Order: sequence, then structure tokens, then C-alpha cells
Amino acid sequence: MTDLPSRRMRLGLVGGVGGSAVGSSHIAAARLDGRWELVAGVFSRDPGRTQAVARELLIDPARAYPDFNQMAAEEAGRSDAIDAVTICTPNDTHFEIANAFLDKGIHVICDKPLALSVEQACGLRAKALETGLVLAVTYTYSAYPMVRMARDMVADGQLGPIRAVHVEYASHYQTERFAPKDWQHDPAKAGLLGVVAALGTHAFHLAEFVSGLRVETLAADLASLDPDHPLDDHAGILLRFEGGVRGCLMCTSVAHGHENGLALRILGSKGALVWRQEQPDFMVFSPGAGPSVLLTRGGPSSSASANRMTRIAAGHPEGYLEAFANLYTAIARVIARGGEGQDGADFPTAHEGARGVAFMLAAFRSAHAQTAFVPLDL
Amino acid sequence: MTDLPSRRMRLGLVGGVGGSAVGSSHIAAARLDGRWELVAGVFSRDPGRTQAVARELLIDPARAYPDFNQMAAEEAGRSDAIDAVTICTPNDTHFEIANAFLDKGIHVICDKPLALSVEQACGLRAKALETGLVLAVTYTYSAYPMVRMARDMVADGQLGPIRAVHVEYASHYQTERFAPKDWQHDPAKAGLLGVVAALGTHAFHLAEFVSGLRVETLAADLASLDPDHPLDDHAGILLRFEGGVRGCLMCTSVAHGHENGLALRILGSKGALVWRQEQPDFMVFSPGAGPSVLLTRGGPSSSASANRMTRIAAGHPEGYLEAFANLYTAIARVIARGGEGQDGADFPTAHEGARGVAFMLAAFRSAHAQTAFVPLDL
Amino acid sequence: MTDLPSRRMRLGLVGGVGGSAVGSSHIAAARLDGRWELVAGVFSRDPGRTQAVARELLIDPARAYPDFNQMAAEEAGRSDAIDAVTICTPNDTHFEIANAFLDKGIHVICDKPLALSVEQACGLRAKALETGLVLAVTYTYSAYPMVRMARDMVADGQLGPIRAVHVEYASHYQTERFAPKDWQHDPAKAGLLGVVAALGTHAFHLAEFVSGLRVETLAADLASLDPDHPLDDHAGILLRFEGGVRGCLMCTSVAHGHENGLALRILGSKGALVWRQEQPDFMVFSPGAGPSVLLTRGGPSSSASANRMTRIAAGHPEGYLEAFANLYTAIARVIARGGEGQDGADFPTAHEGARGVAFMLAAFRSAHAQTAFVPLDL
Amino acid sequence: MTDLPSRRMRLGLVGGVGGSAVGSSHIAAARLDGRWELVAGVFSRDPGRTQAVARELLIDPARAYPDFNQMAAEEAGRSDAIDAVTICTPNDTHFEIANAFLDKGIHVICDKPLALSVEQACGLRAKALETGLVLAVTYTYSAYPMVRMARDMVADGQLGPIRAVHVEYASHYQTERFAPKDWQHDPAKAGLLGVVAALGTHAFHLAEFVSGLRVETLAADLASLDPDHPLDDHAGILLRFEGGVRGCLMCTSVAHGHENGLALRILGSKGALVWRQEQPDFMVFSPGAGPSVLLTRGGPSSSASANRMTRIAAGHPEGYLEAFANLYTAIARVIARGGEGQDGADFPTAHEGARGVAFMLAAFRSAHAQTAFVPLDL
Repeated sequence: MTDLPSRRMRLGLVGGVGGSAVGSSHIAAARLDGRWELVAGVFSRDPGRTQAVARELLIDPARAYPDFNQMAAEEAGRSDAIDAVTICTPNDTHFEIANAFLDKGIHVICDKPLALSVEQACGLRAKALETGLVLAVTYTYSAYPMVRMARDMVADGQLGPIRAVHVEYASHYQTERFAPKDWQHDPAKAGLLGVVAALGTHAFHLAEFVSGLRVETLAADLASLDPDHPLDDHAGILLRFEGGVRGCLMCTSVAHGHENGLALRILGSKGALVWRQEQPDFMVFSPGAGPSVLLTRGGPSSSASANRMTRIAAGHPEGYLEAFANLYTAIARVIARGGEGQDGADFPTAHEGARGVAFMLAAFRSAHAQTAFVPLDL
Repeated sequence: MTDLPSRRMRLGLVGGVGGSAVGSSHIAAARLDGRWELVAGVFSRDPGRTQAVARELLIDPARAYPDFNQMAAEEAGRSDAIDAVTICTPNDTHFEIANAFLDKGIHVICDKPLALSVEQACGLRAKALETGLVLAVTYTYSAYPMVRMARDMVADGQLGPIRAVHVEYASHYQTERFAPKDWQHDPAKAGLLGVVAALGTHAFHLAEFVSGLRVETLAADLASLDPDHPLDDHAGILLRFEGGVRGCLMCTSVAHGHENGLALRILGSKGALVWRQEQPDFMVFSPGAGPSVLLTRGGPSSSASANRMTRIAAGHPEGYLEAFANLYTAIARVIARGGEGQDGADFPTAHEGARGVAFMLAAFRSAHAQTAFVPLDL
Repeated sequence: MTDLPSRRMRLGLVGGVGGSAVGSSHIAAARLDGRWELVAGVFSRDPGRTQAVARELLIDPARAYPDFNQMAAEEAGRSDAIDAVTICTPNDTHFEIANAFLDKGIHVICDKPLALSVEQACGLRAKALETGLVLAVTYTYSAYPMVRMARDMVADGQLGPIRAVHVEYASHYQTERFAPKDWQHDPAKAGLLGVVAALGTHAFHLAEFVSGLRVETLAADLASLDPDHPLDDHAGILLRFEGGVRGCLMCTSVAHGHENGLALRILGSKGALVWRQEQPDFMVFSPGAGPSVLLTRGGPSSSASANRMTRIAAGHPEGYLEAFANLYTAIARVIARGGEGQDGADFPTAHEGARGVAFMLAAFRSAHAQTAFVPLDL
Repeated sequence: MTDLPSRRMRLGLVGGVGGSAVGSSHIAAARLDGRWELVAGVFSRDPGRTQAVARELLIDPARAYPDFNQMAAEEAGRSDAIDAVTICTPNDTHFEIANAFLDKGIHVICDKPLALSVEQACGLRAKALETGLVLAVTYTYSAYPMVRMARDMVADGQLGPIRAVHVEYASHYQTERFAPKDWQHDPAKAGLLGVVAALGTHAFHLAEFVSGLRVETLAADLASLDPDHPLDDHAGILLRFEGGVRGCLMCTSVAHGHENGLALRILGSKGALVWRQEQPDFMVFSPGAGPSVLLTRGGPSSSASANRMTRIAAGHPEGYLEAFANLYTAIARVIARGGEGQDGADFPTAHEGARGVAFMLAAFRSAHAQTAFVPLDL
């Protein structure tokens, strides 16, 4: 990891921590390069639980707040205020919390989906642009070094013009060691979409991120196959990108034995790439002529932007937290320079957050229109 | 391989032999269990080439015919007539040739797609039923032992009710060692469909064969992504099986580095299976509880019908020709008992051939109706 | 498969057929290219069982013999005598049976180990040289196309001077579908060596075959780790090849879950190769500069000698029987030209058979001399 | 990660940081769970470079020392002295530096090999025991969750009595992204052993750690195969563990394309395990009966001690830094309770460090005695 900012940032967090809660991953990732220190937070709706987590995290009890509004207000008033807040709460609360912190001049790092409507997402984006604050969206998988390398290879024309993009995310919530996130099955908190919001938006982002192409229309068949899932738990989605490029996207949470089976295949006229999240240090490149090539993180063909996002020698595996840390360090760089240049930066911003929302709502509309092709509203 | 018929069958073949021509695979497969002997054929439109191939194959020159009509007529008149004929010609000729041999009372083994229209396919099926002759369709992949085991496991309820079936066939004709089959890009010979006919029908058959479920409707997005391909070379197809089971099918011939990347994933309420044709001796079974299990051909959990289709010890790989041979031996068994019971036999028949044709034409109709869901006409 | 001989050879077989008996593999392999027909044999010590097998194999009952001496004598007297005999009996009988057929002017194809002593093996070799008869030894693994390609790449200098060769064969007889070969645990039939004879000789041959280097000395630690195994079932062997090249060889039959885990790694100053028997169509080549390359059978970089030994398109897997068939076809070619040039031919001969015997006996001597380095006596 | 100590420890570091230097990995690993803060160090023999690194690391310049003696002395005198020092310098300096800090009452975390002689290592161990200070040795690979699970499974008898242990470490220093550690080829700094010290000691530790068995004697064949390597770069080592258990160990640094190819296979009478460092979240368990099982980190069969060492959900890969962090957190726990119980703790101590030294020197002795079996001197 190179090009670190010259000071350590102060981080706050609103969201669950411990067990399977994703807050723990945010915190560990933020620590890895030594450029963030967690100093404040709301870690539960239960203030007592928040205090207990704060003790575990060695945080000043005075900065373990009962709710996010109080946190935003009090932190904004401190001379050692947090530089940024991480929001990793259920989907339905992202909009309100992000607004509260942006209003207080605090940079925001938000889990996907950024909001429940495109209007909300665009509103947040407008506020971030207006205030010059960072509004990052944690599409973590896009920060794996090999994903960056894939993007570089496409941009460099090593695959030729892209013809098709295949992406899938097969999982089974119950295969995880930790308990499933119950709110993901609760329409009141998750929104209109189930697995499409939880996993599909990641797959969609990866497809656009690596190909550098925008999806124009999609046709989606959503289903709830497990009777215990009120929202969609399986989706087959046909994508049409700009220029007639085709795509297939599948996501499901009813795939026994599949943990976080996110996989990408990108086909160009001159070559193809295949990458799998569960073995993120490897990627197969098939040039149009000659045999396939096994690319490794940190290996002899690593691209500059991939190398910038790796810390250890090839063959010593990096994983999810390292990818996540890449986002935190990239965000710190932008904050250190006052927020400038975030759209060209190394992390997804509100624009990509809004496209994710547009994607999931387009899938919903298509599914309710007999799988007709519908445009993305953004 | 057990339960061999008590005599050796005489086989004729109409189709190309040598180089990349699939005829060579038919012949090698037929030989493997010692129950077929190739004795006659039309190996080219060029009679001189047919004679040359016959010499190479050690066949009596008198039985190397200039055309299939003459072959059918002369063979039918011999006391040592062929028992069956293999048809491995371009798609547009299957119907006519199959008819000619059925009319002479000769059993038929035909490549897929069985015909270019459902009507043709059903006509052939009717004739086979009427005459009691075998009309086998070589969906070869369904004869791998692990595919049989997958089917058994589904039928036994080890996966619980099926929820979704994912199948894909990613390939690049140019990655093959041998020259591509040029006629596959010629609408006059291939028919209306390109990769959907060439590869998609295999994927479709595999999905129905293993799941034991019928596809009721489908929505297809077909594209020709390589400008040199007049017919479709990429398809994303959403499937709906009986009972609301969902499916995703992708097939393409523009996937550099992909050779014969046929893969199946089947998700049930109690477990999931994953199988890949390029490593056919392995299959991963993920039960709902506990870790995934690596099943191997001939290994400790092999099912009876899988074991019936394997010849050598576990860890000594079997491949495509062995799967193909399984079909030939299964066909020989039925012919040996006079053709009875072919629909319950171990090989695909005209019914499955007709469904493949219905599938590809439904995909064509859907693609020309803005990817609307359309029913399979059979 | 190209360059087929112009006639079909008549084959006899002495050895068990059916179930796990290796005879069945010999027969299927011999059939594959249509250049061998099994016409005679001794298939059991029990003449009744031999007759039953002959019926199953559609062989003339008059050529199903009660013992190998009678078979050699009677066949030699027929105008349609067998061209060659396959010997796949327990180790202790190879010498006697091979002698009997060579004495009658019949070519011999013998399982490894060729004999129980170097003297026996050299005696057989001398007789073959004298008579001009083929004496082939079925080191089957050396006939996989990718193994041929590996050998070509080494010979072409693509790896630079070889530095080290690692080879292992991990198995567990009980993991096989079929019953273990009981005689392999019987010193009276197997000889002095257990797993070193059964599996180690294959690994040793592969190491010499691909590297093109001769092992000069070795140091072996043999053990019987399963109390039910009177002979060695685990061996760690350090090899020193000519020129100071190092080698490590491990073989064992007590590796639960390992079926036929034969694997080869060859390290040169300019590159490295890795190949695994259980996925024989793949090989990884790591050049000194740049990333590793995934080579596939029939793929874009296949060598001429590899392509000569493959039948079907890349991505349609070939397996063990196809490798085995490569030996049979190569042997037929030499027999068709009267036995000339067998040492430069595409199959292992008595010389390699004798080296295998020398290897296993050297391992035995070393193990009984506190693992001292000992020379191979040949 | 559970059971965190109740305060954050202060860490010092003596060793190179940046680029390929392992110091960067120590620092990142120490940060991950938020229980260590790096506050002091000697980061180079060049004081200017040390100051520059300190700036990059946001460390007080006053605690960036010109040499380790000064650091030990000054830190010992501070009220906010470091709790522990990490030593990641060339092998020849470990002993002296470790002594210096132990003498000042500071806990020590040292890279392997702990020292250049068994006497040195035992001296350090005696001092640690006497003073009650922690002396941890960073056999990092032993801290992967799946390695812990393997150890648990062996200890629980799931494999039955162990019969054999195979371990290898194939690498090529030049395949790493970063420059090789030049001193590893300098006998003056590295000691008598090259790859055996650098990689072999890791493999040896893993073998003993997982099996729970002690190696009693070994026979080693060492070679320097690359003319640029004055020390051994290839070793084949036969191991004999207590109770007659056999082992094979291979390590090399001349394996092109191999990055950190550490792999373990452990064979018991009732089952077998295979684990590979480059895909550390997976392990294959082959029970004596039934098919092999694919175990995943955090998956349904994870053992308690494995789960204690994992932070994120299954399918979100963990890597080398997470394993390394497991050591740091385990060390922090023991320091937090005053150093008690370090031998029963979750990290390797001086005893294991000393055995590693004994192993490498035994290999040296054996190699200079014609590969005779020699005992480990400890």
C-alpha cells in the first residue's frame, strides 16, 4: 500500500458490531493501514449494548452515543470531531443517517444500497457535490487488486471491444458461520428487493466497474423460492449494455454450499477474463491466441493500479478485509486533500450508489412487467 | 460396463470422419465395449473421399456408398445388413436421412438437433414408434456417470424439491485444435439458430434430464456478437420449469479460452449439486447441513446407475468417449431385445430430440418478441 | 489419432478380466482405434471362468485356453495366430509367461513390473532383441498427451536445464470402487516390494520419461504403516539423477481419499511444469518470466507428439483408456512394420521395464541399509 | 475474533519496513484487531531511513532509534514503554537483539529461525522462562484457522493414529512482486542454511504442529541448484516421527511459478487431510469411509479453536495478514495476563523456535553425512 495520507483520520460508525454484523469488518478494514482510528459510534439501538461495544473497542464512553442524531450533533461540535462516519445499518435508514452527517459537514461512508429510491440517492449525491464532502459507497468487491487489474486490462484494450459480461452471486445465508441478517428478509427494513439488493447490486456494480460500460436496459425474473423469504431470493437478469454488449446476471441466496460465490466473466473480441471472489488472488486471462494465463495478485504481470492496492508478496493470500481496507485508505487520501477529486478516486461514490439503486428498482419493475426490458432510471 | 448384449451389432455411419468431424468420435465410442462394428457408410459428399476413409477404417469398399439413399437401399437388401445407422451430418439433413433409414427398417442414431422443426421431429418420433425402431439422439453429456448420479440423487430426493437450475455452455470454436465446423455458421445448413442449436440444446437437455422437470416457458435474448457470425453466438435464456422452478441458461461461442465449458448447478431445498463437463469425474454435493462433499466417479458414494456406466477404477479418469460409448452400449442393449423399451432406456430418444428442437425454436420466437416469455411447443 | 497401421492386429490376453481386473482396461484400450481385435486368452486360473469370460467377450471358445503354455503352443500353430499377447497377471508370473510367448514368436505386451529381478528383465530384453519381437511394458501414464507434451517441452529446452523432479503417487486401494488386488499384499506373488512395485515404478518411469534423465542413485525409506500390509505401503525416496539433478519420490497406498494421485513437478532453470494424472488434460507451465500458463490437451500450444496422441477436440476430456489406447496403437504400428524401431517408438520397452525393476530393487536395498544412497543396477 | 485483552499494547519493531520487508506485514497484522499500536522502532541500519519510515508510520521521531541497544535502553526507561518488541531482522542478529530486550524486561516477538544454534535458542528460552517474559516465534502459517482446525481434528482422533505427514514448500523468490531478500543468500547473515532455514523451518513446524508428533530423526539431501545461490535452495528430507510415523519434507526456492506453495498432507488410519497455504480457507478431509469433504473457514464444521481465529463470514476470504494477526492477538492476551501460560497459548514460543533451529541443523549434519539419519538435538 503506497501513497498514504499524512495523518490518521478519526472515524465514527453507526451500525451493528460483533458477531456477523458487518460493522466489525468496517472497523478491522479501517485499521489495516494505520490511517483510521475509530473514536465514536452508535453500535446498537440499545444504548447499553452500544456502551458495551465501546468498551470492547476501547472507545471513550462519552463518544458512544444513544442515537445517530445526537452523535452527528455532538461530534460536529468537538475540536477532535470525527472526519467521517461509516453507516452500516439496515437499508431503510441509510438515507436519513447519511443526510444527518452530511448536514453537519462530516464525510460519509455508506453500505450499499445507498438508499431505497433513486431520488433519495440522487439527493444525497447532490448534497455531497454541493458540500464537497465525500460520500463513498462500499462496493467492497471492486477493491480487490485483481478486480482492479481486470478493469485496467479492459481499459487497456487487452480484451478488445467487450462483447459480453457474465456475473453471478450464489450464496446461502445459512451457510455462513454467523446468523443471517434477519432484517434482510423484512420488507419494512430491506425495501422492495431481497437478494437483488443484498447481492445483486454487488454483481451489477462489478459488471459495470470492470467493463467500463453502462447497463442501459434489463429484463429480470425474480422469485421467492424459499417459502420463508418474503422477498426475492433468486433472480435471473438479462442485461444490455451500451453498444449492444450483452450481459447475464444471476443472484440467489438459496444456493446450499455456496458462501459468497461472486464470479465474473468478461468476454472481449481479443480475450476473456474470469475471476472468482472466493479465490480473489487469482484470475484467468485467455488471450485470443495461445493458451490461458494464470494471473496472480502481486505476480509478474500485475498492473500498477493492482499493485497499488496490495500489501504483501504474491502467494501470501490477501482477502476481503484487505480489499475493504483499500477502500478506506483511498477514502482517507481524498479526505486528506479536502475531498477533492472523489469521482476520479479509487472508491465508489454516490453516483455508483445511485446506479445500484436504479438497477435494483429496474429489476423490480421488469419483474412486475412480465420480464420486459426496462431502462435504468439514471 | 455391465449387462452387455450377447452379440455385436453392425453399424453404418453417414457423416464426416477425420479431423474435427464428429464421426470419428461416434466410431471410437461405438468400439469401446466391443458391441459394435462399423461396416458401412457415407463419409463425405465426395465418393472418392468416402472410399479413402473406408480404407482407413478397414471397411469393405463395396459398403462405402456414394450417398445415403443408395446406402439405405443396398444395406436393407443384405443378409448382413447394418443394424443401425449413425447420422452426424449438418443439421438440415438429419430429417431426410433419418427418414430414409427408418423407412428401410434400420435403427437410427442421430446427432442433435434431431430436425429443424418440431413437426419434423415429431414425424420422426411417430415413425419410430410405429415401426418399433430405435431413434436415439446423442445428447452425449447426459451419459457421463456423474450426470447419471446427479439425476439419481435428485430423483431420490437428496436435494429436496428443486428450486432452480443453472446451466451454461461457454465455448470458443476457434480454441479447438481442429478447424471449426463452418456449416454451423451457415444458416442454410444450420437452420435458424446458431449457438443455441449447437450448444444450447445440450445445456437444455442436461437441465431437464438431471432435474427431471420440464421447462414450460422461456425468455431469450439472442445476439450475434462476432460480426463473422450470421447466426446467434450468445444467448441468455431465463427458464421457467413446471412448479415455478426457475432456471438460467447461457450459451456462447465467443468465450476465448473456454473449450467445452458446459456446467450445471442445481439447487434444491435440501441440497445443491455442481458439475462441470471438463472435469466430468467430479461433482460437488452440498447438503443443507454440514460441509460440501466431493463426489468422484467410481468413488465410495457412486449410485448404481452411475456405476453401470463406468469401466475403470476411481482416479483413472474417464472422458467424453466413455460417455459416448455408454450411449452406444445402451442402444445396443435395446436393439438386442428388438427395440422394446427404448423410452425407458439409458439413452435419449426422439422425444428428447423433439424437445430440443422445441427449445431452440422457442428461444428464437422469444428473441423476436422482445424477450417475452413463450411456451415450448411440445 | 493419425498414422494407423493398415491392418487390424489379433490380440491374445493372459490375465484377469472383469470387475477390477486390469485386463478389462487392456481390452477396451486395444479396441479404441480399431486396430486390435481380441481373439484368444486365458482369463482365469479356472478354465470354466475363462470360458465364461470368452463368451462375454464374443471370443471363439476354442481359443479360450486353460493355461498360457497351451495357448502359446496352439496359437503359434494357427494360420490366424495372435500377433501379440497381453500379460496382466500377478508380478511373479510375468517372466515365465513372457518367455513362453516370445519363444513362440509372438509379440508381448506386459504389465509392470516386467519381472522380479533385473536379471530376468534383462533376459527378456535380450530375447526380444534377438528375435526382433516387440516387448512392450505398459507404463500407461507416459502415454497421456500432456505427458508427451511435457517431455517435448523439456527436450526442446523450454524449461532450460532441469534442476529437480518431484513425483508422487498417493492412493488408497480401498477407495477404489472395485475390490483391491489381494495379491498385491502377498509377497509370494507381488515380490519383495509392495507399493513401490505397484505405484512407485510408475512414478519413477514418469520422472525419467519426462525429464529425459537417468536416476543414478537413490535413498529410500520404506515402511509398512497399515498392519494389514505385509509389504511396504509408504515410501519416501530421494533421487539423484545424472548431472546432479535432484528428485523426490513419494508413493503410498494408505492415503484415504486419494484415488490415483500421481503428480509430477519438474523444475528447470528457465521454467517449471506441473501435471496431475487425475486431471490429465491440463498442465501448468511456469516460464521464468511472466505468469504461469494453463496448457490443455488439444489446445493452442499442443506439441506435435501430443496431438498425435489425441482423438477429440479440446474441452472434451480424454482419460486413462485413451492414454492406454495410445500405447496399443503405437505398438500396432511397430508390429505392422515387423517390429523394427521399437526402441525409438512411442511406447515403453523392455529397457524401461528393466529400469523399473532396478529402481524397485534399489529402493529395497537402500531401505535395508539405513537409507544409504545406492546405485541402480542397470 | 473473540476474547480480546482489555487494553491496547504498545509495540516496538526492529527490522526493515516497506517494500518486501516483512516488517510491514508485522505492523499491519498487529493493527488488525485494535490491540496493538506501533510506537517505536529501528527500521533500518540507516538512521535517516528509520526517521523517514517513522514519519510514514506516524511515530514520534524521538522513538525512532538509531540502533536496537539504544531503543531497548530508552524504552525501558519510559513510563509508556513498549510492551513488546518485534524482531524481523536477518537471521544472524535475532539472538543478540532478543537478548537485549529480554534483559530490559520487554516481551519479544521474533521471526524464525529464532537463532543460529540450538544453544542460542535454548539460552533465549531459559531467559524467557526465568523472567516470565513472552518469547514468541512467528510461525505464521500455524495461525491460519484451517490449520488450527486440522490440529483439532487430529487431536480429536478424527484421522485415527497418524501414519504419515507430507509437507512441502515450493517457491521461487523471483516470482514475488518485491525484490528477493538478498541476505537470505548471504551465509554471513543467513547462517549455514538457505531454503531450509527460510522455508523448511515453516514446513517442519507445520508438520509437528498439526500432527502433534515430534520428529525424532531425519535424513536430508540438500543441494544448491541455482549457481547464484551459495546456500541450499533445494532439500528433500525424510522424517521419522515418534512411534514410527513417516514424513516427507521438500522445500525449494527454485520452483518457477510457485509463490508460497506450502502444502500439508496428513494421513491417518481413519482419515486424511490436505491443506494448501495459497488457498488457506479450504481443506479437504477424507474420512476412511465415504467421499471426501470440503471444509471451509467459518463453514458448518469449523472447530471451536478455528472459529476463535476468524473474523468474517465464510466465503469472504481471509489471508496471511489475518493469520498473522491471530498470533499478535494471542500474544496480547498472554501479555495482558502478565505472561502466564504462554506455553499453552495460541502462539509458538521459544521451545518451537528452538526445535526449528534443531531441525535445520540436523538437516545440515545429515546432508554432510551422506544423508544418514540423524537425531534432532533437542
